[in-house]
Amino acid sequence: MSRFLNKKYEALEAYVPGEQPRGMEYIKLNTNESPYPPPPAVLDAVSREELEKLRLYSDPECAELKQALADSYGLERKNVFVSNGSDDILNFAFMAFGADGAVFPDVTYGFYKVFCALHGIPFAPIPLTEQFEIDPQDYFGAQRMIAIANPNAPTGIALPLAQIERIVQENAEHVVLIDEAYVDFGAQSAVGLIKKYDNLLVVHTYSKSRSMAGARLGFAFGAAGLIEDLERIKFSTNPYSVNRMTRAAGTAALCGSAAAYYREKCALIAKTRDELRERLLALGMEVLPSLANFVFARCAAVDGETVYQQLKQRGILVRHFSTPRIRDYNRITIGTPAQCDALVLAMQEIMKEKQQ
Amino acid sequence: MSRFLNKKYEALEAYVPGEQPRGMEYIKLNTNESPYPPPPAVLDAVSREELEKLRLYSDPECAELKQALADSYGLERKNVFVSNGSDDILNFAFMAFGADGAVFPDVTYGFYKVFCALHGIPFAPIPLTEQFEIDPQDYFGAQRMIAIANPNAPTGIALPLAQIERIVQENAEHVVLIDEAYVDFGAQSAVGLIKKYDNLLVVHTYSKSRSMAGARLGFAFGAAGLIEDLERIKFSTNPYSVNRMTRAAGTAALCGSAAAYYREKCALIAKTRDELRERLLALGMEVLPSLANFVFARCAAVDGETVYQQLKQRGILVRHFSTPRIRDYNRITIGTPAQCDALVLAMQEIMKEKQQ
Repeated sequence: MSRFLNKKYEALEAYVPGEQPRGMEYIKLNTNESPYPPPPAVLDAVSREELEKLRLYSDPECAELKQALADSYGLERKNVFVSNGSDDILNFAFMAFGADGAVFPDVTYGFYKVFCALHGIPFAPIPLTEQFEIDPQDYFGAQRMIAIANPNAPTGIALPLAQIERIVQENAEHVVLIDEAYVDFGAQSAVGLIKKYDNLLVVHTYSKSRSMAGARLGFAFGAAGLIEDLERIKFSTNPYSVNRMTRAAGTAALCGSAAAYYREKCALIAKTRDELRERLLALGMEVLPSLANFVFARCAAVDGETVYQQLKQRGILVRHFSTPRIRDYNRITIGTPAQCDALVLAMQEIMKEKQQ
Repeated sequence: MSRFLNKKYEALEAYVPGEQPRGMEYIKLNTNESPYPPPPAVLDAVSREELEKLRLYSDPECAELKQALADSYGLERKNVFVSNGSDDILNFAFMAFGADGAVFPDVTYGFYKVFCALHGIPFAPIPLTEQFEIDPQDYFGAQRMIAIANPNAPTGIALPLAQIERIVQENAEHVVLIDEAYVDFGAQSAVGLIKKYDNLLVVHTYSKSRSMAGARLGFAFGAAGLIEDLERIKFSTNPYSVNRMTRAAGTAALCGSAAAYYREKCALIAKTRDELRERLLALGMEVLPSLANFVFARCAAVDGETVYQQLKQRGILVRHFSTPRIRDYNRITIGTPAQCDALVLAMQEIMKEKQQ
């Protein structure tokens, strides 16, 4: 830290992203990336011709991409916001709508509290139930912005749409942000509700179900007023944040062949997830019922940190959080079936060694 | 605006980027892009192999790119910051170092005041001299963060390095940010001073001299403490903001062949600029002495708005600002020699029509 840093950021604890290993090859099940590459239509979109245009700024309105997203989801362009990944959008949303403070679960995406700390937004974590579930009633009449990841992370547990709608109804004077980063792997999306409620903001990302974590593209749906507010913040920080290559790839990812590819891969990942859960349960592990592209699991005999370390020694990276309530667990991204086989084998070994 | 927007942003006036025309083909001399595409090494770097890795997050530390930048400029990696364009960096810098307020010229990059408004930073514009020059003494003992674009925009006028150094010395308790977006077209860089002063932050971009406006990449040099502060803010908003394709292209842009290409193009643009200035002066226009990739010019007989409109009718886009002090002028990006020929011809016509 320099002697010049604004005092209000002195105690700020930045978000710690999952490890991005350089060098040694790991089976990388730690940052919820897709194990499958983007489809040919996406790769083709970043053509030599497109690259030669890099000298020109991209369209800061992202009109074409927004229209393609609107068409894909049966909405209008004015209901669509795009920016440099969903983190970027979440940051803007906390800035724009957090005036009265924010609430979110105690166990959820770790970045929410960082945005609050950064912008001086008071926040109150609401404990999940003992089963790591969100009780919708805990959010009724919150009198401040609500942020809910659905499915939640790192638990993977999803709320049914009817319960999301109740929360939106019961907090009509504040924005309810539903972070659907993981929704395409089996949960119900709230996108269909945005025409009905002016306080609902639904945030999506290309990083998970669209195999484009490295391209940085997020989008959000909401009433036109909410989108205008986000645009105002974006155009006051970094209007061109979506680059040309990502814009081209992101638009191509919505075409028929790409959409079909993604549907197939999401179904495969969901199937692999359900099989992995069964196998880990069969080993005697506890595994929360996930509708995301990861499972959250613990092993009564071996603590979470040790499981993480032992898997890493065997060349498998998973994500461990040291937060007290969840430190017995590890979040395991769903890889290919072969990667999941390797994980199960490694867990068997780790648990067997412990017994000896 | 929605009814949910934080009151503190209600009066915020976002930055208005230059027009990015869709549809009709213009000679586009309005947003200071390079008229030349990136070199082959850059295009090759965004390979099919690289695109297949889009499923994976990019390295949030940008270690490889930072090291390449450090090597290019004879610095250490700890002195280098990279993010999604220089606007992104400027935003972080105002957040991090603007606690006591900020000063910058009254005529300069229009985004500085937007960052201040966004973050509630009090700012005092310091008028340029009558010749549109910065008087360094106006900045001595400013007691707050200083932001100076060098060369300045939209004037194109540069301060000599010795004067920049004096400003840095005479404001030792606050950060002096030198925005060198346009430095590669003939002005003197302050990068060499960063080892000597812990309060100097030098910001660069790939958007102008490196023909990569559409890729979104900016970088900054400063003492390790300043860089740590910027990283803290970045990791509290959007850690992965530089995508994989841009990272690959940006690293390739520093290789020997690309660097030689850029040097050649910068020299050509500087030559074209000086020739254009002579030709506009010969037409009877006033043209400020620019060291950037644009000139700032006015025509006594025709007001700035009319020149802008008349050029647009003739298929040439330039940038007009309605700010009272500079509304007689237009900022004209240096295009290819042929594009500059077209501009001179159009100006001749416009001035001739006015005389009739």
